[in-house]
Amino acid sequence: MPVDLTAPLPSELFAVPGVRIGSTMAGVRKVGRRDLSVWLLDEGSAVGGVFTQNRYCAAPVQLCREHVALGSVRAFLINTGNANAGTGADGLARARRSCGALAAKLGLLPEQVLPFSTGVIMETLPVERIEAGLDAALLAAAPDHWFEAAQAIMTTDTLPKAASRRIEIEGRSVTLTGIAKGAGMIRPNMATMLGFVATDACVAPALMQALAREAADASFNRITVDGDTSTNDSFVVVATQKAGHAPITDLDSPAGRALRAALNDLAVQLAQAIVRDGEGATKFIRVQIDGGRDEAECRLAAYAIAHSPLVKTAFFASDPNLGRILAAVGYAGIADLDQSLIEMHLGDVHVVTAGGRHPEYVEADAARVMKGSDILVRVNLNRGSATSTVWTCDFSEDYVRINADYRS
Amino acid sequence: MPVDLTAPLPSELFAVPGVRIGSTMAGVRKVGRRDLSVWLLDEGSAVGGVFTQNRYCAAPVQLCREHVALGSVRAFLINTGNANAGTGADGLARARRSCGALAAKLGLLPEQVLPFSTGVIMETLPVERIEAGLDAALLAAAPDHWFEAAQAIMTTDTLPKAASRRIEIEGRSVTLTGIAKGAGMIRPNMATMLGFVATDACVAPALMQALAREAADASFNRITVDGDTSTNDSFVVVATQKAGHAPITDLDSPAGRALRAALNDLAVQLAQAIVRDGEGATKFIRVQIDGGRDEAECRLAAYAIAHSPLVKTAFFASDPNLGRILAAVGYAGIADLDQSLIEMHLGDVHVVTAGGRHPEYVEADAARVMKGSDILVRVNLNRGSATSTVWTCDFSEDYVRINADYRS
Repeated sequence: MPVDLTAPLPSELFAVPGVRIGSTMAGVRKVGRRDLSVWLLDEGSAVGGVFTQNRYCAAPVQLCREHVALGSVRAFLINTGNANAGTGADGLARARRSCGALAAKLGLLPEQVLPFSTGVIMETLPVERIEAGLDAALLAAAPDHWFEAAQAIMTTDTLPKAASRRIEIEGRSVTLTGIAKGAGMIRPNMATMLGFVATDACVAPALMQALAREAADASFNRITVDGDTSTNDSFVVVATQKAGHAPITDLDSPAGRALRAALNDLAVQLAQAIVRDGEGATKFIRVQIDGGRDEAECRLAAYAIAHSPLVKTAFFASDPNLGRILAAVGYAGIADLDQSLIEMHLGDVHVVTAGGRHPEYVEADAARVMKGSDILVRVNLNRGSATSTVWTCDFSEDYVRINADYRS
Repeated sequence: MPVDLTAPLPSELFAVPGVRIGSTMAGVRKVGRRDLSVWLLDEGSAVGGVFTQNRYCAAPVQLCREHVALGSVRAFLINTGNANAGTGADGLARARRSCGALAAKLGLLPEQVLPFSTGVIMETLPVERIEAGLDAALLAAAPDHWFEAAQAIMTTDTLPKAASRRIEIEGRSVTLTGIAKGAGMIRPNMATMLGFVATDACVAPALMQALAREAADASFNRITVDGDTSTNDSFVVVATQKAGHAPITDLDSPAGRALRAALNDLAVQLAQAIVRDGEGATKFIRVQIDGGRDEAECRLAAYAIAHSPLVKTAFFASDPNLGRILAAVGYAGIADLDQSLIEMHLGDVHVVTAGGRHPEYVEADAARVMKGSDILVRVNLNRGSATSTVWTCDFSEDYVRINADYRS
């Protein structure tokens, strides 16, 4: 059950000039599922991408890194049902072959195609099924297929995730539209499982990487469902250069700032949507750590809380067993942490002061906060001025059910 | 449901000369539960202890560290139902008061008492109930109360955990008997929630700390249920010096080696018992990492696997979705790991070679192994000769149920 999240209406998703998307049911793993999509990018599009830090990264991630660096990407090829990870040299060859097949149909080089896969790890990619589906996907390609594109990357997601923004730069309308998927193996360390944003903004290609990185750090790199960093995390930003304004060559110019603000905001919405639709999620939880010496230690503490199965099950039960949060802060790995300085708030309730229970704290107040669906946990370490926020969800019996059944 | 684990028979637990144990129902949190115990150690006993590395360590842990260092411990005071952690200065005062109350009844100094608490965090310790229960516990004190002692430290454990060993040193019979408890918030980083071993061996007091450390490293520091390092982990070894052999002054002497072997073996049995009775556990899983550059990186990979909710739910389902194990190895934090060198076995089944699926691997073989209750996962990193093993359990819907209900 997604938490305060509904599917976008197709009419809310704006086409991005220079991008056409087509999808089909290729039967990669199961029949009757929209599991293959192709993105066609007009010539001159610039692409930036960030990819998983998992050392066991998937074959398509390895190819994406190579192909993005070459700087003339013209197409994406995305499949669900198979991650093509843990597949060794054979997996790499199959990913290359799928790029080659699409490139041949489009008169491109294989290196101009970015491949993306998501699904079960350590299964052989059925590349012949992907090849067989290419014509249908290409035939369907159109600028207004963003809703179908979001559907075509879903695995255990219960809802498609997509959003649009429209801003003005130099009096020209600039569009940004993005899609993303979750919903398990979510603790992105670069990007999420799969996230794509396209804009028709005019941006110097050399800036794309920095744009993608900043947006990922503000969004997908702040979420966790289960602490499992995927082998396939990929987040890609495309600028088709069609909007007609002067190219952005400085990200700190007014136009650069406007674009970054819109892009980061869109990425945050997509990232939060992944958490809201996290496997088995019933609550959306914001974990904010203040008063750290640096952001890194704030993140350590925030992720320790956000990954603790005990904390997450307590939230599921709406049980203010909040000592579990303190325990997580204590084992987060901040070597010289002084527990006597810790303050904690749950929503507006002051729970812990000077490291111990606040004298006026009563559980009924915390229980009231925990019954909500959008909950803020604030811990102040009181040893500096750094801060960091992580978004996560609770941990329910449904998470176990979903992951015990995922392949069946 | 504990995995291949039964309660010990009281007759299997040997008394340790110099140790008397009494317990009672003090109503610390709930009535009708054996929740308070007192250990009385004869004069001359030597004690070593290791305690949680959680920076949010409990008040009793803080006092234990102080009191062990003073070197004349004569009594333990143990309660369940309340962890006295996250309780600030007031919690420390209450722990001191409980030590003082027991010391006064025994004609000791408060510093000769080690306090241990386990239960809910951030609740005020009802020290008056503990004081009120002391007389009944002392009245019950006897050398043959090891079974009751194991019962008296249970929280969410389904079975008491205790075991004995008997060895010969210089023709004298030497006894070791220990108890431990789990069953959640188990990822000891020093010791487990609570573990106690007593022996009548004659050991130079200066060696006790090294003995305790080695035993903890061989046992409690290799287990995990849910990755949550407790605020109260404590593991204590007592030598009452009653066995009549010449004192051990060198841990590498034949007598020292014999004692260490028996102690480590006993500690491993107790630690594995905690995992076998892990909250919701249905399977016992040994994660062995070979071929690391050093033990530290082997432990990183082993714990990444052992903590992954996706790996643990796959084991619960007996679903050989083994790519999840590769993903965990990949995000374990080994910066320059080369995935193309990885080999993986599940039991006797060769699953992964050269980083990819073994050509002769068929899932039916892995499925057969996963249906067992005691499963060995072996991953070879092929970059060195170090090795490390971690013991864990699977992750079931019952874990969520237990932890969503723990306080109710």
